[in-house]
Amino acid sequence: MTDTTSRDGLKDTIACQTRISSIIDEQLSYAGYNISELMDNGASFEEVIYLLWNLHLPTQIELNHFVTELRNHYEISDAVEQCILIQSRRHLHPMSVLRSTVSLLGVYNVHAEDTSLEARYDQSIQLMAKMPTIIATFARLRKGLTPIAPRKDLSFAANFLYMLNGAEPDPIAVEALDKALVLHADHELNASTFAARVCASTLSDIYSCVTTAIGTLKGPLHGGANERVFEMLCEIRDTNAQVEDYLQEKLNSAEKITGFGHRVYKHQDPREKYLRDMAQKLTEGTDDEIFFTLSRRIEDYMKNTKGLIPNVDFYSATVYHSLGIDSDIFTLVFAMSRVSGWIAHIQEQQKHNKLIRPRSQYTGPQNLEYLPIGRR
Amino acid sequence: MTDTTSRDGLKDTIACQTRISSIIDEQLSYAGYNISELMDNGASFEEVIYLLWNLHLPTQIELNHFVTELRNHYEISDAVEQCILIQSRRHLHPMSVLRSTVSLLGVYNVHAEDTSLEARYDQSIQLMAKMPTIIATFARLRKGLTPIAPRKDLSFAANFLYMLNGAEPDPIAVEALDKALVLHADHELNASTFAARVCASTLSDIYSCVTTAIGTLKGPLHGGANERVFEMLCEIRDTNAQVEDYLQEKLNSAEKITGFGHRVYKHQDPREKYLRDMAQKLTEGTDDEIFFTLSRRIEDYMKNTKGLIPNVDFYSATVYHSLGIDSDIFTLVFAMSRVSGWIAHIQEQQKHNKLIRPRSQYTGPQNLEYLPIGRR
Repeated sequence: MTDTTSRDGLKDTIACQTRISSIIDEQLSYAGYNISELMDNGASFEEVIYLLWNLHLPTQIELNHFVTELRNHYEISDAVEQCILIQSRRHLHPMSVLRSTVSLLGVYNVHAEDTSLEARYDQSIQLMAKMPTIIATFARLRKGLTPIAPRKDLSFAANFLYMLNGAEPDPIAVEALDKALVLHADHELNASTFAARVCASTLSDIYSCVTTAIGTLKGPLHGGANERVFEMLCEIRDTNAQVEDYLQEKLNSAEKITGFGHRVYKHQDPREKYLRDMAQKLTEGTDDEIFFTLSRRIEDYMKNTKGLIPNVDFYSATVYHSLGIDSDIFTLVFAMSRVSGWIAHIQEQQKHNKLIRPRSQYTGPQNLEYLPIGRR
Repeated sequence: MTDTTSRDGLKDTIACQTRISSIIDEQLSYAGYNISELMDNGASFEEVIYLLWNLHLPTQIELNHFVTELRNHYEISDAVEQCILIQSRRHLHPMSVLRSTVSLLGVYNVHAEDTSLEARYDQSIQLMAKMPTIIATFARLRKGLTPIAPRKDLSFAANFLYMLNGAEPDPIAVEALDKALVLHADHELNASTFAARVCASTLSDIYSCVTTAIGTLKGPLHGGANERVFEMLCEIRDTNAQVEDYLQEKLNSAEKITGFGHRVYKHQDPREKYLRDMAQKLTEGTDDEIFFTLSRRIEDYMKNTKGLIPNVDFYSATVYHSLGIDSDIFTLVFAMSRVSGWIAHIQEQQKHNKLIRPRSQYTGPQNLEYLPIGRR
């Protein structure tokens, strides 16, 4: 057997082949397109979903058709809205609510067990299209606000901001969210994607796989980093602390500074610069500019003293906040993007399926004798 | 990188170390106790849960305390019963309902995010204790029957049968279910357990991990085999087919006969003989004896013509049916046992944690140029 012990967490072990995304020489690519190629040419999130699912960029006709299909499924049923309502008390954990709601979406989809190619495509479209509606509905209900129905004439990003904030969104905000969604769409075998593939490898349904991915993303070693970045920014702002003193104190007590370092990227996170630019553009001249200013100072300090570079989570905190998203649902908005990658991986896994079933190494005693309970 | 391609599904790759269970030389052991040692000495399911969680058998005082804690948490809240009620229409998939209900149990447990050792132990006890109540409540509601409240004076197995069937269960039935629960409690890194460990490795909460495991077990390559075995038995009975003709026809058209063969066991499944004995004992002289008789003839035929031996699922079909369990909730009863193993693995993973994050091998094109949509 391959000698990979629990200390390694399958680090550097190849678990499967894929054509969906790659990280080679610290460059992230979707189906062969470098992320900078997509960003610099203004690929939309809808184009990127299509790319991840079909492994080629759409023609205009293909894109129009795909966008229409998505928009036709933005709406959620009254039953699903009721399910969100019963989970909308303020103290309930947003990621737990998303996990349950996607699971319930599967319970109520009478075609969830259909494994034909057409049915699986329909399930994918439905899940993708309804995620923003679920999240915006939840975000409003928990504040005591009435949910806002989706608008078919709006793009994925624009429609989400409209449903969340109840107003036609600013074009700069739409562009920023669209770019953030593109940047977060897929990232090779991160833990949630891998968990989704393990689930998919038993030929389970798409809702089980995405529920699995959401539950896995919920863990603090995977999701939620930008939420913690935003808490740090607020803490520095509210205490009027000097950035340098604040960080030095944390580092002296061996605390990790969230938003820096990455298991895969050591020299640069190829997604980070786009988020920094967006954070600057969105906050310039607004009350939120302080978050960008603080972030720049933190970045400089971490670079100069520790040689650490910000990761994708660092500037996304300021971006998301500027878009009117509450920090405790940052991870749900991340999931709204990443579900495109999860679905691509689930479909790829099931197309060339082999049950993912590794072995464990047993390190305990063997052949023990059962003593009657009175003699133990 | 280790060369494990997608075709292998991490077969023979060691993903972690464990002290919970082992399969060595086709012998299954729990924490060092061979399954036959536990079965032949009459270890109860409660003792086995304790063993899997604590890695030693309990003294009488420890067992009494543990059993009391479990019984004190049999009850589910009105909110959770309501969640089951809204999912109790007959056509909804039972495993999807279990997945959602466990997820909702997590939403409503206000201590679900507490990661202290005490809180995690309490979450484990609660989840373990409430699984039978959730399943029995669901099984009754979907038939239009009133749910029956749990009884603290009954063992785990006896209480489930009482809540399911609405009558004090027969001691032979209790013994059979108790033994079946022991046999299904853990099985090294099967796909659902591995998926639960991947989820746990992000330090996600126990409800996310168990929801993941249920969604993974739902897949036909993992769970549900005994349900399909029972369908086959009914088909043979209802069509008055000759067992030998029926099987030969299936084999001629290259169909797999469910309940035979196993990825790990090639010569014998150490759990199978106990289930066969129970199936015989439970059905003798009853209307269900036909299922046992047919099963024996299928076993003989498969052994003689294909050299295949029955696995754990084969006789469990007849056992579960004889206990009054509908075949479409067989997998839920399996989950009611396996959750003990899932929880043991989740706790072990988080005690010695390392994020499980393998790599994939990218096999697609690279460095593609983004063409404007009009030129594609």
